[in-house]
Amino acid sequence: MNPLEGKDIISIETLAASDARAIFDLSKVIEPFAFRQRVTRVLEGAVLANLFFEPSTRTRISFGTAFNRLGGSVRDTSGVETTSLVKGESLRDTARVVGGYADVITVRHPQTGAAKEVADAVGVPVINGGDGIGEHPTQALLDVYTIEARIGEPNGKTIAIAGDLKFARVIHSFVRLLSKMYEGINFKFIAPNGLQMPANVQESVGSTGRKHTMTFHNSIDAISDADVIYLTRMQEERFDDPAEFQRYRGKLRIDRKTLDSIAKPDVMLLHPMPRDSREASNELDHDLDGDPRLAMFNQTDNGIPVRMAIFALVLDVADQIEKTAHPVNWHVPDKF
Amino acid sequence: MNPLEGKDIISIETLAASDARAIFDLSKVIEPFAFRQRVTRVLEGAVLANLFFEPSTRTRISFGTAFNRLGGSVRDTSGVETTSLVKGESLRDTARVVGGYADVITVRHPQTGAAKEVADAVGVPVINGGDGIGEHPTQALLDVYTIEARIGEPNGKTIAIAGDLKFARVIHSFVRLLSKMYEGINFKFIAPNGLQMPANVQESVGSTGRKHTMTFHNSIDAISDADVIYLTRMQEERFDDPAEFQRYRGKLRIDRKTLDSIAKPDVMLLHPMPRDSREASNELDHDLDGDPRLAMFNQTDNGIPVRMAIFALVLDVADQIEKTAHPVNWHVPDKF
Amino acid sequence: MNPLEGKDIISIETLAASDARAIFDLSKVIEPFAFRQRVTRVLEGAVLANLFFEPSTRTRISFGTAFNRLGGSVRDTSGVETTSLVKGESLRDTARVVGGYADVITVRHPQTGAAKEVADAVGVPVINGGDGIGEHPTQALLDVYTIEARIGEPNGKTIAIAGDLKFARVIHSFVRLLSKMYEGINFKFIAPNGLQMPANVQESVGSTGRKHTMTFHNSIDAISDADVIYLTRMQEERFDDPAEFQRYRGKLRIDRKTLDSIAKPDVMLLHPMPRDSREASNELDHDLDGDPRLAMFNQTDNGIPVRMAIFALVLDVADQIEKTAHPVNWHVPDKF
Repeated sequence: MNPLEGKDIISIETLAASDARAIFDLSKVIEPFAFRQRVTRVLEGAVLANLFFEPSTRTRISFGTAFNRLGGSVRDTSGVETTSLVKGESLRDTARVVGGYADVITVRHPQTGAAKEVADAVGVPVINGGDGIGEHPTQALLDVYTIEARIGEPNGKTIAIAGDLKFARVIHSFVRLLSKMYEGINFKFIAPNGLQMPANVQESVGSTGRKHTMTFHNSIDAISDADVIYLTRMQEERFDDPAEFQRYRGKLRIDRKTLDSIAKPDVMLLHPMPRDSREASNELDHDLDGDPRLAMFNQTDNGIPVRMAIFALVLDVADQIEKTAHPVNWHVPDKF
Repeated sequence: MNPLEGKDIISIETLAASDARAIFDLSKVIEPFAFRQRVTRVLEGAVLANLFFEPSTRTRISFGTAFNRLGGSVRDTSGVETTSLVKGESLRDTARVVGGYADVITVRHPQTGAAKEVADAVGVPVINGGDGIGEHPTQALLDVYTIEARIGEPNGKTIAIAGDLKFARVIHSFVRLLSKMYEGINFKFIAPNGLQMPANVQESVGSTGRKHTMTFHNSIDAISDADVIYLTRMQEERFDDPAEFQRYRGKLRIDRKTLDSIAKPDVMLLHPMPRDSREASNELDHDLDGDPRLAMFNQTDNGIPVRMAIFALVLDVADQIEKTAHPVNWHVPDKF
Repeated sequence: MNPLEGKDIISIETLAASDARAIFDLSKVIEPFAFRQRVTRVLEGAVLANLFFEPSTRTRISFGTAFNRLGGSVRDTSGVETTSLVKGESLRDTARVVGGYADVITVRHPQTGAAKEVADAVGVPVINGGDGIGEHPTQALLDVYTIEARIGEPNGKTIAIAGDLKFARVIHSFVRLLSKMYEGINFKFIAPNGLQMPANVQESVGSTGRKHTMTFHNSIDAISDADVIYLTRMQEERFDDPAEFQRYRGKLRIDRKTLDSIAKPDVMLLHPMPRDSREASNELDHDLDGDPRLAMFNQTDNGIPVRMAIFALVLDVADQIEKTAHPVNWHVPDKF
């Protein structure tokens, strides 16, 4: 019995810890198919509609690749924002039409709540690929999966989160998911004034009854005792006061020297990407590329098994994956 | 012997009634593959080029999904309007190049006659996905297929068509197809002054020698005795006189109350989508969503079997569909 | 042993003549799969990422179709220029992320050197689909393959190249490839003042030690003794002096009359497309369409077997193509 069969994945708030655990368990089993050791064709004949209302190469390609790796076909709709919706069509109508075409829909949309709206309009499973400042649940799932893959369940660990904590939807989903899955996490929230973690997210941490602690900081020095650091970008347009942005510019940066001098030697550094590599921003320096502490590319790599697992669960084919399985027959490099 | 083998589907004008019948017969057989009860891989290895010179999410995804459901691969060219054609390349050249890549081409283009131009340039079958104010034959086929699926052959039925009848290419194809397939249809054309059915379409109704009647109206009250209503949008830019648009705004609207008070209880309501859901337009109210009289989503759903049937016929694989057939092995909801 | 296994195809400069020969040998074997006589599924389960940072319908569709014809799936990223890169993400980061998704990457980019940058960032094979005024190696390979297919190895032949020879990257790759593969080619370079073949390309011809000759011309009359003519567009924006463009406008045009009166009767005429069919440009007249001397559509057709061969070699599946092979089961026209 698979409790995710036919379900939508809209938010971390409404996802049970046991559902996340089921996704992680299957992701582990699916890794050889995602990382090109084995091939499965379990979803041959099925169709994914990638309903993207704003451009997002990374997320769109990740969902599409995950579906292809299960043997399914993908129809992309990246230009959807320029088509019939400009003629006044409701999101509900577009969704219902696509529900008649595809077996599962991923949706990305600039407006908060759009993924739920799509899900309400259709019978097929809907996966939220990020809606406005709302949720981006598959990102949170792959983030936490990446932590487990490296250090195991982070019960009792110190997790420092730095950057714009107010507007970064991925951070909200990340904190909610950690809070409901584990015990005794020591959260350190590091942000400029005005960009700290919103009250509703703080409350959701408290409401789990799982004895987490939260402390609030505005200097990068707070990463010193962290087992895991999650760093995000700060976007100038998010600041009410441009002077405040200038004051914080560069203050929440991490490079090799910072890690070497402040952080624990085996710290794990996450980043949701894209990182801003322009001189003025550069919150995460390229001198950490290839450094084993940086887990950023493990996160994006893990997007494939996690999204494959989600598709396999909502379409209820997990126990059929082996049926068509065989080894990969083409060249695969040692490192991607 | 399949008379559509290798043929182009450019217009309803040049499509024989017997061809439409062959498409409908196969669509019926193909429904289980379109509606996710069965899987076929009959076109595995074949490639469709979706040559779209203007954006159209719905039509592009529908063609692509239909080809995927037959086992084929799809290459999309939705950005084609911004590429080499702006460097002065002729449509003929683009078409011939793509004919060297793909087994079948669908084309959508802002200019009337473009689909024929593409078909003339290539040897592979070409399907018109709508060209300018010309034709949109697959839409007409799925519209009429939807009528047959619900009420059988509409011989002797009253079919009311309301909206901008002058510029709506889909309406012209719809009327031509009904005229050549059935006997004794009572057409009621409901349109604002200046937007009535063009003379050439009226003539084509008369020229079939099949005893249809046509009457002309400008009030929505004319739907009262209709067995089928086909409603379309009015676009402000089509009116010579903006005041005329204002005068008709809202006059050809249908909502639940209109149907309940004026129409026959078992009337069937069609709409080609997109519907304009903005307050000022709103020609078809959302209060009819889920109402059994509204067949609009049956139309879009039926786009898949009808387009699958067209691909299977022009590529002549209809009698091989069963060979690779097997039941769907993933979760399918009761309603899409 | 396949020396191209896991390799990148970035430039003709770094490609050995023996590698080009291996690609041609396999292209010949693959032609029945490219030209729809046979089907293979050798890359079923593999994923190509078409990483296009500028629009190019023809090249993108050609790569994608070639991969589909081997049984693989394709993820397109044509809108990539509008997404996270505008937020300041480095090309290196984008590349590395996509390397975690796909088995092979094709890249097209407005900046010279971009393909190499992508290749340096990832472990999977990278194919250059054209970068700035740099290289476009697969175009050169299909150009030369088309010559061999028609007249055999062009040792000792006269090859005239006309148009903008300074900026046309495809011409540079073409000349380099001919120089390193064959003996005693008589190159005739025909260009307006200021747009002649750059010194570095001339030097690479000399450096092969294979006794080629080069002569320089500025009139189309120089095609008179050519066995092969390669014609390209001139773009106004390439001229320093607009008056110079006006002076050459129409001077390097070829139509049926030109060929009939000046050229050898069995001359072979190549063009990389797109051709500019606007009146003011029209370097290659439509009156040669269908003329057996014009090999332009053979070039684009040959893009499929050549690109299939490249994918099959870098992914090392050439000797497995037959395993899943079977005849095409759908309608194929006599001429595409």
